[in-house]
Amino acid sequence: MPSNNISESALIKRISRKITTDASVACGIGDDTAVLRYSKDKYMLFTTDMLIEDVDFTSKATAQAIGHKALACSLSDIAAMGGIPKYAVISLGMPKENAVKFIDGFYAGLTTLAKQFKVNVVGGDLSSSKKIVVDVSMIGEVEKKKLVLRTGAKPRDIIFVSGPLGGSIYGRHLTFTPRIREAHYLVHNYKIHAMLDISDGLSLDLRRLCSASKSGAIVYEDLIPLSNDAKSMDEALHMGEDFELLFTMSLREARRLMQKRGNVYKPIGEMREKEYGIKFITKKAQEEVLKAKGYQHF
Amino acid sequence: MPSNNISESALIKRISRKITTDASVACGIGDDTAVLRYSKDKYMLFTTDMLIEDVDFTSKATAQAIGHKALACSLSDIAAMGGIPKYAVISLGMPKENAVKFIDGFYAGLTTLAKQFKVNVVGGDLSSSKKIVVDVSMIGEVEKKKLVLRTGAKPRDIIFVSGPLGGSIYGRHLTFTPRIREAHYLVHNYKIHAMLDISDGLSLDLRRLCSASKSGAIVYEDLIPLSNDAKSMDEALHMGEDFELLFTMSLREARRLMQKRGNVYKPIGEMREKEYGIKFITKKAQEEVLKAKGYQHF
Repeated sequence: MPSNNISESALIKRISRKITTDASVACGIGDDTAVLRYSKDKYMLFTTDMLIEDVDFTSKATAQAIGHKALACSLSDIAAMGGIPKYAVISLGMPKENAVKFIDGFYAGLTTLAKQFKVNVVGGDLSSSKKIVVDVSMIGEVEKKKLVLRTGAKPRDIIFVSGPLGGSIYGRHLTFTPRIREAHYLVHNYKIHAMLDISDGLSLDLRRLCSASKSGAIVYEDLIPLSNDAKSMDEALHMGEDFELLFTMSLREARRLMQKRGNVYKPIGEMREKEYGIKFITKKAQEEVLKAKGYQHF
Repeated sequence: MPSNNISESALIKRISRKITTDASVACGIGDDTAVLRYSKDKYMLFTTDMLIEDVDFTSKATAQAIGHKALACSLSDIAAMGGIPKYAVISLGMPKENAVKFIDGFYAGLTTLAKQFKVNVVGGDLSSSKKIVVDVSMIGEVEKKKLVLRTGAKPRDIIFVSGPLGGSIYGRHLTFTPRIREAHYLVHNYKIHAMLDISDGLSLDLRRLCSASKSGAIVYEDLIPLSNDAKSMDEALHMGEDFELLFTMSLREARRLMQKRGNVYKPIGEMREKEYGIKFITKKAQEEVLKAKGYQHF
């Protein structure tokens, strides 16, 4: 919840208004990653994610899990653009006590995932800090024709998620597999109109997608796949940390996807005109406004 | 000082032993930035720097100064490779209280410097945090022929610094100008054998340069240019945060540099064979071993 008379998205808008970029920047602040022009047929992707103890994980999380999550969050951002990860640099602040043991565990978790997705870890920065803080910055690339932004959703698009939602913070947020392969499958076999990864909760991230695409949406409680970890539909809607893909495509494409991979990708609703707003249809067929109650830092 | 039975450089070696990279990585962990193959005549540079409250700045530092320093540290790393900065992403953790005011000041300081060096700020991450923590990751590029590593210093090379040293932490570390232009001048007009930026103190960073180049060195107290802020030669040797360039070139090139820009670039000594070690000649002509007492996080 906004706690400072200004929301996180308003803060980001405030920052981006002050920043000018040159023509090599195809897409700057505001999507999951920056999109940079760098070769004839590919864009470079550039993203960063910071994780802080007591905010993104508790002191109970193992060093290995923290290393895994730190890399996985940036991988998830690259996936959300339809991209392939290439290089990562890792900044790590931690207490001096047990630094060696922590670093060993942290890098064991991180490099296992890095190998799985062929990411080169090419540098970093070590710092002493009372609380653990990690930042992973990642360079990726995407074929120009395969790039997916948040901005391209169209009214009557079908809205999909790549997996069940809710309850991630009970454990899954430390062990999740970023949806690189799923995104690759999707952008190479279907025309995806808009995509992002659900990091702060379906309700908030759907609002971001709608806002970027200047559209409304309708989602059905009946259709939202609930994770086994979720204690309620509210957790699937608002809890965040799911790191599943949220994406939209035409009805025609949607039919094809459901036929081929309907077991994985679940339709949850439909895009609407902006004026319609964002609505939630309960199991009792009641229409409610879907309020964005996802996690906000500010 | 190492405080954990293992030094920072030993920690970095420990990490890099666990990491494998593919053939596109010309230089990974261990220099000021990573060096990546990406076009026929240019390398991509990729670096990250984390700054933490109470470690890299005190709570008295203004938001503007923190923004300036955060970007300047990464620019300094790009400079140390002979490179040109291109893109930056900014992660910022800060207390919820006064977030808007802090962000305004922080980005004012950061964007002023970004404009000066034509860096595109293309993304970032905002997080709530008790202590302020900033991470700047930067992509740069360098003509392949102009790349300078730490590894190329040769015995009998002359060792230079790009400006006076010492006393930076009394204020200059928050306002310094990264040596992008100086590095550009150097690599375009001279054959530089090895270079880095002095972030943790001359004694420690010279040791890093010697170690990477498998060489020794001799430096003369008489020759080390003392900053007006420095209270003693010890501060010039060990205090760190100078962010001046430390570089080596042949005597022939050195003569040319001294003739043309001897007012700026000061020779402080000479490279030696590895077996010689690293020696310091005092004003009284006494030979001492130059101990690395620069700042170490671990």
